[in-house]
Amino acid sequence: MTRDGRTAYTLREIAGRFGGEVAGNPEIRVRGVGTLENATPECIAFLANARYLPQLKTTGAGAVIVGEAARNSTRLPRIVCSNPYAYFAKVSALFHPAPPPRPGVHASAVIDGSAVVPETAEIGPWVVLGRDVRIGAGCIIGAGCCLGDGVAIGGGSRLHANVTIYRDCLIGERVTLHSGVVIGSDGFGIAMEEGRWLKVPQVGRAVIGNDVEIGANTTVDRGALDDTVIEDGVKLDNLIQVGHNVHIGAHTAIAACVGIAGSSRIGRYCRIGGASGIAGHLSIADRVEISAFTLITKSIARAGTYTGAYAFEPHALWRKNAAQLRHLAELAERVRRLEKGRKPPKRSKP
Amino acid sequence: MTRDGRTAYTLREIAGRFGGEVAGNPEIRVRGVGTLENATPECIAFLANARYLPQLKTTGAGAVIVGEAARNSTRLPRIVCSNPYAYFAKVSALFHPAPPPRPGVHASAVIDGSAVVPETAEIGPWVVLGRDVRIGAGCIIGAGCCLGDGVAIGGGSRLHANVTIYRDCLIGERVTLHSGVVIGSDGFGIAMEEGRWLKVPQVGRAVIGNDVEIGANTTVDRGALDDTVIEDGVKLDNLIQVGHNVHIGAHTAIAACVGIAGSSRIGRYCRIGGASGIAGHLSIADRVEISAFTLITKSIARAGTYTGAYAFEPHALWRKNAAQLRHLAELAERVRRLEKGRKPPKRSKP
Amino acid sequence: MTRDGRTAYTLREIAGRFGGEVAGNPEIRVRGVGTLENATPECIAFLANARYLPQLKTTGAGAVIVGEAARNSTRLPRIVCSNPYAYFAKVSALFHPAPPPRPGVHASAVIDGSAVVPETAEIGPWVVLGRDVRIGAGCIIGAGCCLGDGVAIGGGSRLHANVTIYRDCLIGERVTLHSGVVIGSDGFGIAMEEGRWLKVPQVGRAVIGNDVEIGANTTVDRGALDDTVIEDGVKLDNLIQVGHNVHIGAHTAIAACVGIAGSSRIGRYCRIGGASGIAGHLSIADRVEISAFTLITKSIARAGTYTGAYAFEPHALWRKNAAQLRHLAELAERVRRLEKGRKPPKRSKP
Repeated sequence: MTRDGRTAYTLREIAGRFGGEVAGNPEIRVRGVGTLENATPECIAFLANARYLPQLKTTGAGAVIVGEAARNSTRLPRIVCSNPYAYFAKVSALFHPAPPPRPGVHASAVIDGSAVVPETAEIGPWVVLGRDVRIGAGCIIGAGCCLGDGVAIGGGSRLHANVTIYRDCLIGERVTLHSGVVIGSDGFGIAMEEGRWLKVPQVGRAVIGNDVEIGANTTVDRGALDDTVIEDGVKLDNLIQVGHNVHIGAHTAIAACVGIAGSSRIGRYCRIGGASGIAGHLSIADRVEISAFTLITKSIARAGTYTGAYAFEPHALWRKNAAQLRHLAELAERVRRLEKGRKPPKRSKP
Repeated sequence: MTRDGRTAYTLREIAGRFGGEVAGNPEIRVRGVGTLENATPECIAFLANARYLPQLKTTGAGAVIVGEAARNSTRLPRIVCSNPYAYFAKVSALFHPAPPPRPGVHASAVIDGSAVVPETAEIGPWVVLGRDVRIGAGCIIGAGCCLGDGVAIGGGSRLHANVTIYRDCLIGERVTLHSGVVIGSDGFGIAMEEGRWLKVPQVGRAVIGNDVEIGANTTVDRGALDDTVIEDGVKLDNLIQVGHNVHIGAHTAIAACVGIAGSSRIGRYCRIGGASGIAGHLSIADRVEISAFTLITKSIARAGTYTGAYAFEPHALWRKNAAQLRHLAELAERVRRLEKGRKPPKRSKP
Repeated sequence: MTRDGRTAYTLREIAGRFGGEVAGNPEIRVRGVGTLENATPECIAFLANARYLPQLKTTGAGAVIVGEAARNSTRLPRIVCSNPYAYFAKVSALFHPAPPPRPGVHASAVIDGSAVVPETAEIGPWVVLGRDVRIGAGCIIGAGCCLGDGVAIGGGSRLHANVTIYRDCLIGERVTLHSGVVIGSDGFGIAMEEGRWLKVPQVGRAVIGNDVEIGANTTVDRGALDDTVIEDGVKLDNLIQVGHNVHIGAHTAIAACVGIAGSSRIGRYCRIGGASGIAGHLSIADRVEISAFTLITKSIARAGTYTGAYAFEPHALWRKNAAQLRHLAELAERVRRLEKGRKPPKRSKP
């Protein structure tokens, strides 16, 4: 059931809402979305990645969303648009609206008397809201979430089950936090003195902007003194570590398993590939793309794509090449000697 | 206390159950299992890794399980078998059977009226079971677990404390989920349009087969449209990310900290080393082994071992070699010139 | 408000407690700590990283903590000491003491009759304490924590919300466990037999020493037979995996996202950079430093720094160099031939 209670739309109606051009029969009705591979005739599918072009020939979908380049690659009724993936996102959201809150506070929730919970919010079982917590209108706080003293959540946000937010952290509007997320845990601040680590108190906050989404089991540490900041529209995937005092610029998207060390500053509209790492105290410009599995050890001043993964090979070949890599500086020296017409030096066994 | 209430077994009795050949006194009784390093005379130890062969000389164990190759490496009473580690697993399970469920529902659990909970199941404190949840016979659902609407768990499964399963996900029989596991969180589906990310609704499920074990704090995202699928017998270690629409073939084992990006298909009987990564939309054949710390960026069509980690070195040596690596293409060109008898080009400083 | 109820201290008083030499007006009062960048005149800031030296000129702080080298780099009232970061840690802890427990057991906690909970401990909502659990004096057990049968926690420890500890694990004194931490989950012990994985029962414990801190969502597996051991003073950041039977020596510090495979032994006073990996069954000496993003595949017998990350480059340059890397062994062979005055071999396309 869609937002407006309807179960089907014609292509003409969809294009009326979201733009694009209908090619083929505009009165075709669709009742849902699907993949090219598995869609039924009642569904509309989409092509956003050329890799799946062959499936356009064989799909069982009743209609498709395609880009200009694929306009003539199918005879199916279709919507031609400039950005098929974004278009599909909107059509899918039409058929699958986010579930609204079921207002009310579960009897088991432990809510401090000073906390502010509007009537429009849904507070699940086993929720703990500390002193002076403020929950925005229309929020959904899932089962088992624990919000420390002074936490504030902006309107329309959703915390899935078992999210933990430490004291004083601020969460914006329309934010989604998935299960297992931890916001505001202590940063890794330790100082060695006479053979023992001293803890550096972590007294900053974590401040999350509007329209941020944070994936399951991702952790965002609070600042040591100043705040850790995640600006509006940032999207973080699962199992990411955001160190203390990191600053992530608006609309940056970060794939799973990335680690960002303390005090680094990442620009706006960056895209960071999975399992990458960013060392501490760096500055990354706007619109930088970092490939998967890449460690960034220096600041990056200019937009562009940066890569640093060792390409994989069959193991036997890798062994040979990796063994030589340990002698690369020596190899370069030998080439220099050859260029100068000198005799090769005696050398260690490769 | 073992499954059948006995506290000791002779080697003859053990070999009677599990096969293998007893060498030395078959009437030796053992009351437990231990490592070569720390076992007492009442325990049986095992040798499965040649690295520990020296410990076979010094062990305090009363008996050992060894392979054919080590048959004569000790005078201790021993069971000789073809697969000592598997044999040990069975002997250890004899002495340490999994704890059975303590049937009943804790008074604090919040269970929707439509949920199905058999009398043989154990439901811990603070559990939440949503609408139409179905729990199989003999399941143990640990404290604080939260199962969304429509979730089904097959018989004999165990969820340790604080597992979260989002709505509509399916879990097979005899599955073990460790604490902090999140199943069915939204995949990382976002589409950029006019400077903002649009969320792509994630409406597929995560479907987990029988005899799967998933380690602590591992996350398995639900599919975007079709399902994320983990087939029977898959073993996942801790802190792994399984992206949306990933398909993992039966009996594949994946070590900790691995990230698998969306829509990749991994074959059966694969073994994936720790902290590896698999990029999105790839296909990995059956019986592929991927070494630790390796990023897979292309599909792999053939069984075999694949590796891509940069071998570590003392830092000073690494600096020299890594510096040359930035000039490797240039170095190769210089060698080509030398081979052709041409003069070296002017070149940038190495 | 500080520990002793005071809100301000003069530099003279601070140096009286913690040592160091006051330069400039020792009667300056400070009411808190801050960063050079954002401190107000009522705050004392610190310089511990030469990277931030320029901020010493522009800071709004009323006083600063500096090392000997920066003694004359500012005219602000200052405390000159040998270890400014450790000094700062102590001053910050003076202004921000850890919150004391609020003794008492929340009405909702489920505590087995055999568990021992001293009157000085704080037990939060939705806590589960199993059979024979022992809680030390002055502990804080946060909301939703689940401690299995036989767990013991030493005095003065703090478990933030939603920590899970499996049965029989031992936690030392003054330990801090952050939210989402899982201690004592099963190690990844599986043995292949006839096409199926057999589970190896994990019957050892995880034993955590005194003064250990473990970051959010980090997992520490229990031992297979013997224990997993983390010695006194170890500091673990977030999202770290500690495999079964790992032994981490005292005062070792490990940054986020590191994976340590089973049975490896890490020395004392090691420092391990973020997102590194340590393969299984290795031995790492005391005082080894491992750089970020480095995979350790062999034991390390000597103190020193070890590195193994592929340095990142702009993508186009990376492509060229990474392509040649696949031919490195061949390139080395060609150089050997040149050195011997032989003709180049026919070779595959680079």
